[in-house]
Amino acid sequence: MPPKSPVLPRTKAAPSSGQVWLVTVGDELLAGDIHDTNSTFLAQQCRAIGATVIRTVSVRDRIDEIAEVLREAASRGVCACLVSGGLGPTTDDLTTEAIAVAAGVEVRRDAAALERLEAKFRAFGYDNMPLSNIKQADFPQGAEILANPIGSAEGFMVRIDGCRVFSMPGVPRELRKMTTEQVLPRLVEAWALREVPRRIYRVLGHGESAVAQRIEGIVASARTQSPGLATMFVHYRAATPQVSIILEGVAADSEPDAKGATADELASLDAAMIDALQPGIYGIGEADLATRVVGAASAAGVSLVVAESCTGGGLGAALSAVPGASACFVGGVVGYNNRIKVELLGVPQSVLDEHGAVSEPVARAMAKGGCVATGADLCVAITGIAGPGGGTPEKPVGTVDVAVSDGSETTYKRLKIRGDRATVQRASAQWALKLVWDRLVAKGVASIVSLP
Amino acid sequence: MPPKSPVLPRTKAAPSSGQVWLVTVGDELLAGDIHDTNSTFLAQQCRAIGATVIRTVSVRDRIDEIAEVLREAASRGVCACLVSGGLGPTTDDLTTEAIAVAAGVEVRRDAAALERLEAKFRAFGYDNMPLSNIKQADFPQGAEILANPIGSAEGFMVRIDGCRVFSMPGVPRELRKMTTEQVLPRLVEAWALREVPRRIYRVLGHGESAVAQRIEGIVASARTQSPGLATMFVHYRAATPQVSIILEGVAADSEPDAKGATADELASLDAAMIDALQPGIYGIGEADLATRVVGAASAAGVSLVVAESCTGGGLGAALSAVPGASACFVGGVVGYNNRIKVELLGVPQSVLDEHGAVSEPVARAMAKGGCVATGADLCVAITGIAGPGGGTPEKPVGTVDVAVSDGSETTYKRLKIRGDRATVQRASAQWALKLVWDRLVAKGVASIVSLP
Repeated sequence: MPPKSPVLPRTKAAPSSGQVWLVTVGDELLAGDIHDTNSTFLAQQCRAIGATVIRTVSVRDRIDEIAEVLREAASRGVCACLVSGGLGPTTDDLTTEAIAVAAGVEVRRDAAALERLEAKFRAFGYDNMPLSNIKQADFPQGAEILANPIGSAEGFMVRIDGCRVFSMPGVPRELRKMTTEQVLPRLVEAWALREVPRRIYRVLGHGESAVAQRIEGIVASARTQSPGLATMFVHYRAATPQVSIILEGVAADSEPDAKGATADELASLDAAMIDALQPGIYGIGEADLATRVVGAASAAGVSLVVAESCTGGGLGAALSAVPGASACFVGGVVGYNNRIKVELLGVPQSVLDEHGAVSEPVARAMAKGGCVATGADLCVAITGIAGPGGGTPEKPVGTVDVAVSDGSETTYKRLKIRGDRATVQRASAQWALKLVWDRLVAKGVASIVSLP
Repeated sequence: MPPKSPVLPRTKAAPSSGQVWLVTVGDELLAGDIHDTNSTFLAQQCRAIGATVIRTVSVRDRIDEIAEVLREAASRGVCACLVSGGLGPTTDDLTTEAIAVAAGVEVRRDAAALERLEAKFRAFGYDNMPLSNIKQADFPQGAEILANPIGSAEGFMVRIDGCRVFSMPGVPRELRKMTTEQVLPRLVEAWALREVPRRIYRVLGHGESAVAQRIEGIVASARTQSPGLATMFVHYRAATPQVSIILEGVAADSEPDAKGATADELASLDAAMIDALQPGIYGIGEADLATRVVGAASAAGVSLVVAESCTGGGLGAALSAVPGASACFVGGVVGYNNRIKVELLGVPQSVLDEHGAVSEPVARAMAKGGCVATGADLCVAITGIAGPGGGTPEKPVGTVDVAVSDGSETTYKRLKIRGDRATVQRASAQWALKLVWDRLVAKGVASIVSLP
């Protein structure tokens, strides 16, 4: 009884213009020593110009392993490989030689590149360039050199069969500059790319399958409305307690001449989507919940403070991660210990004694007390049991009370979050932001709008 | 003039027991919507048991693309693929079917798994399991099911030729539990793996190349001391402002019978390493700085509070991320706005007016005021310019003042951090923890010890 799923065309049989592999090179990636943030950046940049990343690969600093991946890509009809790393001066920087091997050409020293390199080292204040750096003037024969004004490693582009291989340094800021200034313009020109329309509906508090069920009918009906909407692509991004629904104009692997939904056609689904996703939906677009809360509160002149227990400052950190947060975010109190709840937030000791620190009355008193102590317009309070210890049968780990007060009216919610300590802390802060958002909506100063 | 490089044996020709590919599945990875943290975790775990990750691949939610990667791995003689993601209930969760295609078997519904699934949903408080979840009881024929006690998606293992394919849910905490409890033990048993001894020296405040220079002589001399130390592998993990030096008993791609350094041989380098890495070194082992600070302060009965401006709660969040933090962490004040610095931390308005919020006198006053306001033993204060706005020629973005006070004696440091807002905020909190650590060392209640 296999689940029914669409059978998709094989990549190999029908390569379409704009299909890209990302290849990151480095033992440190395979050892788990660092996150591969270059792949994330390159994927975002490709998407923005309408190029489709169909695979990312990380390989070790080995000539044969690097070359093998590039030959695979070329033999499958992939249009471009963006390669990151292995252009440095040390003995484990082998990408140039590996690409030459894959392309079946020699490595040659470029005299003009060597002059530029030596000039850079003089500008860096060296009397003599270290000998080991000389190899950074070596390129595969026939390569087109890509300038690197902020580092010693220039990049290059060579073709392996029909596949353009772009080789860039792994240092993130050098890679980023070379990508946007040298690589993307070449891809846009080569493939006459156009951006794929994309619409994101952001939801907090419904699970992924519940969200999928809620919009099932809308999607099915939309597919009958136009040839464009018929080919739109629906996917989900989930991070407890949030789910985003992503509609894209056309599935990335559709036929090149597939019509695809326009941005306007996708936007025409807004009303139905918002209706189906209440009360969890808070926005449309890339901007996250903290960004929206900060934006709406700042625009309305509403000042915010936090009164945090089990999150220990995580909610304040989420707010202050937004550039310009100081326009609304005042600060607050971390009352991890009950004494701070009493002394700085004015929670009555008797309420703590009677109900315990994780209780509706304490959450409400913290929120109200935070307003009083600071004079802010809204205070959001969190008190709960993040675990792994501290749970009881009535209040297991993941029991969290959240409250928002303007000093007189206080709203409240009890959460039951499943997950480890980090999940409980992160999810609590996100839920608290949603409660603030709902208060801003109730005040008429926030609404579900599309933000880039 | 090709650069001289060792020509390495081809992976295909000589597969060695313990070679692994990591395969993460999900359109969100290829779109740059999320970082692939699962690969990083899996790579670390494989390394810990002595298995060698030679390639990581991310592919889209497409049956043919997932199946293709697994067939490639099997045809190259890779011993195991650890696959993450695509086991959820939605229509774009296609990993089970793709693995069945790659293995050439049918997908079958497992009656016992369906019962377990329904029981989980009852335990989660659902009256009826959503229909879409039924497919989570489907497995490739002949698969060995891997339990998932904390989520709905059970994993499974099937063989494709000689390659063991382990399929796990993409939810990080579920993947982590399944990896350590179900997958790693099977690999260790199958391949008779032995753990590679490993020693991590943790340093804050020296750059990667400075650290490398400081230990160069120690490493060179160690290699002459024994056949084991001669083959040890040295690498670095850097995340501003921290660098860790990782010594491993033997390089991952050494001959299977290479002797390798023992744990005792690596530990014999401690004294020289500590000496070379002063004053930045704070510990040996996996435990991070916050964990060490919480551990030492709790054991010594020292209570800690925070007084944060530009980090907005991030330092408190870092402390409270440690399980059991409440044994020493009391809470504190987020004085994002100057008014809070005055009202709750007692910073004199005149000091703010004269020196500005980002200044040594204000940092010192915040730290001292935090002790006074809360009665805690130590208060750590942070005030700075996280950017992107707010910088001036004298105090550019990344200027951060950090101070630690016990109410009478206050230590202070000015930081100049290069990077974006998130980097400045994260690095500031880490530097602040280091200042606390140094105070605990000075008090005689903390020391550089090896912690697991």
